[in-house]
Amino acid sequence: MKQQRKNTGGGSNKPPKKAYPARGSDNRAKDSRPVKSTRPARGAREAPQNDSPKIRIDIYGIHAVEAALNNPERTIHKIYVTETAEDMAYELIKAANKNGRDHKPPVLLEKQTFDRALPKDAVHQGIGVDCDPLQDVYLPDIINRAANKAKSVILLLDQVTDPHNLGAVIRSACAFGADAIIVQSRHAPELNALVAKTASGAMEHMSVVYETNLARAIENLQEHGYFALALDERGEKTIGEAPKYQKTVLVLGAEGPGLRPLVRDKCDILVKLPTSGNFSSLNVSNAAAVSLYAVLA
Amino acid sequence: MKQQRKNTGGGSNKPPKKAYPARGSDNRAKDSRPVKSTRPARGAREAPQNDSPKIRIDIYGIHAVEAALNNPERTIHKIYVTETAEDMAYELIKAANKNGRDHKPPVLLEKQTFDRALPKDAVHQGIGVDCDPLQDVYLPDIINRAANKAKSVILLLDQVTDPHNLGAVIRSACAFGADAIIVQSRHAPELNALVAKTASGAMEHMSVVYETNLARAIENLQEHGYFALALDERGEKTIGEAPKYQKTVLVLGAEGPGLRPLVRDKCDILVKLPTSGNFSSLNVSNAAAVSLYAVLA
Repeated sequence: MKQQRKNTGGGSNKPPKKAYPARGSDNRAKDSRPVKSTRPARGAREAPQNDSPKIRIDIYGIHAVEAALNNPERTIHKIYVTETAEDMAYELIKAANKNGRDHKPPVLLEKQTFDRALPKDAVHQGIGVDCDPLQDVYLPDIINRAANKAKSVILLLDQVTDPHNLGAVIRSACAFGADAIIVQSRHAPELNALVAKTASGAMEHMSVVYETNLARAIENLQEHGYFALALDERGEKTIGEAPKYQKTVLVLGAEGPGLRPLVRDKCDILVKLPTSGNFSSLNVSNAAAVSLYAVLA
Repeated sequence: MKQQRKNTGGGSNKPPKKAYPARGSDNRAKDSRPVKSTRPARGAREAPQNDSPKIRIDIYGIHAVEAALNNPERTIHKIYVTETAEDMAYELIKAANKNGRDHKPPVLLEKQTFDRALPKDAVHQGIGVDCDPLQDVYLPDIINRAANKAKSVILLLDQVTDPHNLGAVIRSACAFGADAIIVQSRHAPELNALVAKTASGAMEHMSVVYETNLARAIENLQEHGYFALALDERGEKTIGEAPKYQKTVLVLGAEGPGLRPLVRDKCDILVKLPTSGNFSSLNVSNAAAVSLYAVLA
């Protein structure tokens, strides 16, 4: 990665307009899984298009930045602030450095320069960081980690493509103590700044596993003692009526299309949420939160 | 309102840039409650600033528009579409008219014209309507309507100011069959297009009551047999451990500040959600969905 980094963080140069990938954009190699040691981590930046210094903000917003600053697994290159957020930034850095981190002082940017480095609707709260993505996590690691836990719940999201939804699910999963979220490599959003902002800091604490084949991932979990519970309107039982298991993988589809048959057919049981009326569909992050509550409470 | 309407819907005239109120804007009279018969309904439009015809889109997005077209309580003035959404619009109108509505054919707009009538990040899906706001609803009506129900749950939101959050709560409340949502007149968002879009059609089906004094509203509900359950981290019991009541008002605060003491102190019991770890806070719409599930399931 090092040779790709031409950023100097000088605030006075106008950054190219598309310094930041647009919402839902996806720079990952689509259909290949290169050998672990050589491929860039998920969400790794592309080489800049020219040699002009540019401001790169990978995570923004108070809660998301605070969590990143405190995460020892997260390599931070630069911390950017606007004037109004400067004092707060120093406080956050001081607190993180007290916890063993070693952050340099923030780089002050004009608000306009900060705004230009992000999509127009980004609620950045005057603070952002230029950082590396987290290391990829793999399903076997998750399974091993949870092997001896009294209770393990993993979420699996099929066809969830909206970064707001992924961020919100990450937040709920973290709050309810889920062990991981599994998504599909090909269609799921990157763990980008928008996901981080929506997750409100929880992205630093939640393992998100990108799998090529979700049906195979369910099988793999089942082989390791997980019971696969699919949320589906056609379920005969409600999720509250389903038996409780020590290890559960909660399988949720996107709103509208729902679960793909190949994924649904791998599950051990279909359950529904006890919703009523014509407008019975929940947003996927709300469905995830309710399901987590139902299996964990 | 009639004399204020100068819209002709001519698609060729460039609409003024701020034809649509910005996210979170609030045009309501702040501290007065004029007599019911003379005051405009909540969210009623202001008189246009000049005589140029403008395109006014009050609700956009497929699900939100579909629900509005089918709602007999909703007066629709014009239906706007872009070319790509035209066929779908005719289908929606046909279906609504089969159900007793009497909508005229849609007005075709250039995509650019459509885009200009809405905030930049509006995901309008090529369809929108110019319509009147729904009639205000009042707490006594809600109480009367629920008087003989076997179970009634009302949500009360303190300090929830984000229209996305209100929209998401409306959607969940509708899915779980809540009887109403109570918000504070002074701080809650309008029932605007963004709320309607986030609610994904549910806004047409959910009573949202704007109250000046939330503590007084809780008292009023208690006098009519409602048990007030406040979501608060300091609760000793989890929401699942709380007794079940025939009539419940679920009181939720905004993320961060939480409930104001005046509101919290009126409640009969404080309960918490069974979340864990440092990142235990849920987004308010997720907290609402989980709470509704917990008291209704």
